[in-house]
Formats: sequence, structure tokens, C-alpha cells
Amino acid sequence: MKKSVLVVSLFLVLFQSCKKIDQKNQVFNPTPVKEIVLDSLRHPWSISFLSEDEVLITEKDGDLIKANLKDKSRIKIKGFPSDLVDSIRVKDFRDNSGLFEVVQHPNFKSNQLIYISYAAENSNGTTTKIIRAKLNDDSLTNIETIFVADPYRFDLFHYGGGMVFGKDSKLYFTIGERYYNENEQPTLPIAQDLDDKRGKIHRLNDDGSIPTDNPDFGNEKISSIYATGIRAAQGIALDTLTGMLWFSEHGSVQGDELNLLQKGANYGWPIKTTGKYRNSNYEPPIMENVEFTAPQHYWLQTIAPTGLCIYRGSEFPAWQGDIILAGLSRGSLWRIKLDGTTPIHVEELFVNDRVRSRKVAQSPNGKLYMLTDEPNGKLIRIKPAAKDD
Amino acid sequence: MKKSVLVVSLFLVLFQSCKKIDQKNQVFNPTPVKEIVLDSLRHPWSISFLSEDEVLITEKDGDLIKANLKDKSRIKIKGFPSDLVDSIRVKDFRDNSGLFEVVQHPNFKSNQLIYISYAAENSNGTTTKIIRAKLNDDSLTNIETIFVADPYRFDLFHYGGGMVFGKDSKLYFTIGERYYNENEQPTLPIAQDLDDKRGKIHRLNDDGSIPTDNPDFGNEKISSIYATGIRAAQGIALDTLTGMLWFSEHGSVQGDELNLLQKGANYGWPIKTTGKYRNSNYEPPIMENVEFTAPQHYWLQTIAPTGLCIYRGSEFPAWQGDIILAGLSRGSLWRIKLDGTTPIHVEELFVNDRVRSRKVAQSPNGKLYMLTDEPNGKLIRIKPAAKDD
Repeated sequence: MKKSVLVVSLFLVLFQSCKKIDQKNQVFNPTPVKEIVLDSLRHPWSISFLSEDEVLITEKDGDLIKANLKDKSRIKIKGFPSDLVDSIRVKDFRDNSGLFEVVQHPNFKSNQLIYISYAAENSNGTTTKIIRAKLNDDSLTNIETIFVADPYRFDLFHYGGGMVFGKDSKLYFTIGERYYNENEQPTLPIAQDLDDKRGKIHRLNDDGSIPTDNPDFGNEKISSIYATGIRAAQGIALDTLTGMLWFSEHGSVQGDELNLLQKGANYGWPIKTTGKYRNSNYEPPIMENVEFTAPQHYWLQTIAPTGLCIYRGSEFPAWQGDIILAGLSRGSLWRIKLDGTTPIHVEELFVNDRVRSRKVAQSPNGKLYMLTDEPNGKLIRIKPAAKDD
Repeated sequence: MKKSVLVVSLFLVLFQSCKKIDQKNQVFNPTPVKEIVLDSLRHPWSISFLSEDEVLITEKDGDLIKANLKDKSRIKIKGFPSDLVDSIRVKDFRDNSGLFEVVQHPNFKSNQLIYISYAAENSNGTTTKIIRAKLNDDSLTNIETIFVADPYRFDLFHYGGGMVFGKDSKLYFTIGERYYNENEQPTLPIAQDLDDKRGKIHRLNDDGSIPTDNPDFGNEKISSIYATGIRAAQGIALDTLTGMLWFSEHGSVQGDELNLLQKGANYGWPIKTTGKYRNSNYEPPIMENVEFTAPQHYWLQTIAPTGLCIYRGSEFPAWQGDIILAGLSRGSLWRIKLDGTTPIHVEELFVNDRVRSRKVAQSPNGKLYMLTDEPNGKLIRIKPAAKDD
């Protein structure tokens, strides 16, 4: 055999061996490690990437800020409405009030519009409000109210507040039922009442008007409702590849859930739940001819699931299409491997380094980040371990 | 550039690119899928590979059998002692009695010796017994009793019965405390009493004699004891690479644990637990000057962990060194990624296909298998998905 032929043969063997690995459903995956990118954030709630290195961050107990991930500089965005609940006060350890999600308009680059959800207050209490504003340099201008989840009331939890634009350029958002205990439910439970905005997922056009193709629950009903039977959903996220929307939901006692959003679906609360009622004597009304949609996954322990993303980055190829989800309770970072829409493997990451986590998000280039729910909150990058890690 | 030089350069580029992947802590990993290899097993408890395709299997509610994984043939091994608890009867839904582990002597190929743990009975009740026997064709001969976890008593649970040979060729095995509720504990709890064999991990020479280097708990104490403070451990496994021994332990209410076996260690039960007592009024005695060893991991939900292995196969490279653990409760198959001896990621596999699982084991060639704890129990191979799966 000539020398060059031998080399070519070796080359082919090596090439085939690389190819074979690929063909056998094998994918590369690095070891994930954490890198703190920002700290001293006051209970950060959400992050929106203006570019790979410039972000908007909402602090639940603070401000809407703009930060640079490279030089670590940060500024407060001016002009926020004054009805934001002053969350410095601590009325109740379960206090969820403050700033929630910030998302960009699908055409943000040309119109500079952003949407912010927050706990607003008036003399009757507080509720979830969504505003649209123009981000003009470092100030909000042209502020418009897009949605108010009235009635206002004095309890300070289960606002919901998660928002995302779908592939259809509609704004989807979560509104919790605002009740802590089933004792307080009216005869027709809040989340099942189509005359009540609470305990629902809503869908609006970018200007706050009602899309013509929203589900038809009847003429007299609240027309922004897209799905019902929600107790306390916060996180909602778009799978940019499939267009599917996923949302997490807090259970009462256990019953923490991961759900796939479907038009007009009823997720069952409080008639049907994968957890237990806080009030063991509570007997939900019987609802006939109602079809309930089960969660795609639920946990047997309390994880308090919140902000999530569907991983479409390239740094962790084996995680492609997995749901990465933050938890406020002891399990802080979860990865859910799907087969289609069915969870098949559920991994709790970093069990040796648990922290209350609020949000998981991806940068435009697909880098994975998480926010921790702490007074000294952190933005953490989840990155592949370097060779010497 | 000459043609052969070009080819060599291409070769090097490709080689470097393959190498680079390796260097970046990236490993290949295929998608795991299940393949049923055997069924109609009566609550199989353990498996021991005589070769890649021939195995011994203990059925908790049946026999010691020999099976061929290729032609699916199986025979009952004759000559088992008659004091095996007849587990066809069902006295109690918590009945754990029956056949437990079968393991081979480190020199099995030359001496044909096997060890079997099982629930034995006499007129005073039942207890865990370990025998050694020669596997002579399809019969047991030369049967010797190696260990009896007296006293016999009439409760039918927490026998333990997990066995493994260490790298030191000593036999390690788990004996549960045999109590279901803390109410029944004597003043000095069983698992803390060094005059009691129960609630311990023991270590013996292959002939049942006491190793000279067992921990020294005092002259009058039971000299086979290697570790104390065990409630209801079943699974115990050797990491063939590191020589470390790991064992799982059932909690009372929560408190399911994964432990690293250490000479002379006290794992705390019932003084210290990561779960809750069944009897909320139970107050354990105060033990002073006693150091308790914490589990490496514990679950916040009930998983009922049992037979485990430390993965050293090659089919799932990313799982190298991970602990794969079976659960009897809803979570049936767990993978625990370690950093040294610290769990960092904990994955529940096949959440869409949960089954009561008893044991995870590897074949001589490193293939991964599990046994399901069912009347129609199965031996399942966990294998890489084929290209078209």
C-alpha cells in the first residue's frame, strides 16, 4: 500500500468513527458550572436582553435597571409609574408584591417598546398591572396601561406577572387567583369564574386590544382569557423552535406543576389538583361537563417553580429543547428532558449549591443565565466547565 | 503543498477537533431506552452475572433461579434451605420477607461459592440469614450458615439483606432494625445498641469469621459490626474503580438517604434523621460524645431507595462513576452525578414510565440492567437508543 493511500485510509477510519458517534443518537455535553456575573440585585425577577451584553432587569424589591454584563455598570430606568407597591415594607412573609416581568416588543429594535408587569396599588389594595412604555435612553416615556387585574385587594400574594410574546406576536401573561387558602373561595371558585380576571392566563394584542382569535368562552365573559383554572402561575416561556408555550404553577401543598399552554384549556384549580388543599376540609364544587387539562409534569415535593426557558442554546447540546426551570424552594434549578411534549427525565442540577432561584433565561446567542431570589440577588451564568474546572 | 501533506494536514485537523472535544470536558452520551429482557419474575430482588448472558436471580416471592438472557430459558436452583419464609402468604402489606441478595465469592470461578441472604423462620418468628453454598450444576451443596441476625421476631419488615464483596474480599451486608414505628424502640435504640445485630452494617471474612481489622467497638460488643445507626438499609454496592462502598437507606417519613460507607461510622438513626418520625411524639434519647455521619444525599420526597450500582460501563460515557439507584416508590430510577463523593446533579430517569424498581446492576461487560418489584417482575436492560429510536 502506498503511503498516501494508508493516510487516506486512516483519515477515513477516523472520519467514520466520528460520524458513527453522531449517528447513534450520541451528543456531546459539557459539565455545567456557575459563574456569578452580577450581584447586589434586590430580589431580581426577570431579565430581558437588549444585546448579548446589555440587559434590562426587574428587581422585585427595587427598580427596573439596565446593566452591562461586561463592565458591570448599571443604571436605574427613570419614569416608572408611582403606583408601584413600595416593597421595602414587609407586611407578610409571603409578600409577592413588587416588580415582575419585563419583555420587549417583537419589533423593539424599531419601536423601543417594552412591557412591564408589577404590583400596583390604590386605596383598595393592590393588583397586577401591565404597562407598555417606550424605552427612551434611560427613561420610560409614552406609558400606557395595557391590563389591570382588578379587583384590587389587600392580600400580597399570587399576582402571577409572568409575560411572554408568542410566535404570533401576541402577549401572553399569568394572573394568579390572589387567594392563599381555599377557605376564601366563593361558591364559584375564582380560577373557574370567567367573569373574573384572576386565576387565568390572558392573551392580548401588542396594543392591549383583544385578539379576534382568542377562545370563545361566551359573549359576556372576559375576552382576554386564554386559559383558566390557574392557581398561582408565574413563569411562562416560549419554545422558539416549536412555538409552544410552557408555564409553571405553584401548588398549595405539593402539586407544583409544569404545564403546556393550550387555547381554552382549563387546568383544574381548585376542582382538580395534583397537590393537597391547604384547608383539608375544603370541598370544591362539582363542575359537570368540564374537561380539565393535566399538567405535563408535577413534583411530589415542594419546589416552588417559577421562571423557565426552553433551552435552544448550543453550549449544552444534550439539553437541546429541554425545559430549564427555576425553583424558589430547596430545589433551585431543574432540567426536564422532553420526548415531544412528554417529560421523560427530570434532573435537579447543583444539589450541592441550592439557592432560591427566580428565573432562567437565554441570551440572544443562547447563553444560559439564572437569577437568584435573594436580597443580594445574583445573575449567574451556567456555562460549560473549562478544561481545568 | 504536496497531496500527501494536505491529506496528513486534514487528518491532523480532524484528529485535533476530536481531541479538543475531549479536552473541553465534553463527553458523548446516548439517549437511554428500556428493553425488557425477562418477565414473569416473582418480585425479583437481585441478580448476579455468571457470564454476560447467564445470571442468577433471586425472586423475593419465589426461588433462586438461573436464567439465560439470550434464549430466555430458566431453571430453579435446587436444594435451598427449608427455613426460607414461605412468602406466598400475605400477612401484611409491608411484608418484606423472602429471598434477598445473591452474590458470588470473589473466586467463584474456581470455588463456585455463592452467598444468599433471605428471611428465615423458626418458631420464634423470622430474621435475616446469610448462607454460603456451592453452586453445583443446578443445585446448592455444602450449605453453611454464615450469619443469623437474631433475635427472630414476628414482624416482617426491614430485614436489610443487601450484600456485596468489597475490594478487600470481605463480605459487607445490611441488617435493618426490624422496627416499623419508633414506639417500639427500647431505651437504647436498636440501631445504637452494639449488643444487637440489627440496624447495622456488618463485615465478615468469606468464611463467616471476623476480620481482624473490623472497627473496635469494645471487647464485649458484636464484632461483625462495621457501621451503626441504620434504620432500614437494603442496597449496598461497590464502586469497582474507587473501592468505595455506597448504601441506600429507607427513611421513616421522608428521610430516604444515600450514604457512603465508612468504617465505624454511626449514621444516626433514630437519634438523628433527615426525615420525620412516624410517631411524632417519639423523643430519642440524648447520646453524648457520639459523632453522627450525615448522608451524602437525601430526598425531600419518598422514593424508597433500594438496590444500586456505581456505573462503570461504557455505553453511557457521561454517566461514568454516577450512582444509579432503584426506588420502590414513585421515583423508580435515579442517577446521581458525583463530584468526588459529593452529589451535584440528581436525575430521575423515565418519569413517563415509572415502575417499582428493586435493583440496578451491571453485567461483566458493563451493560446496565434493572429489576422491577412486581408479581410479574421484569429484568430490563437500559441501553442506548438506536439511531431510529
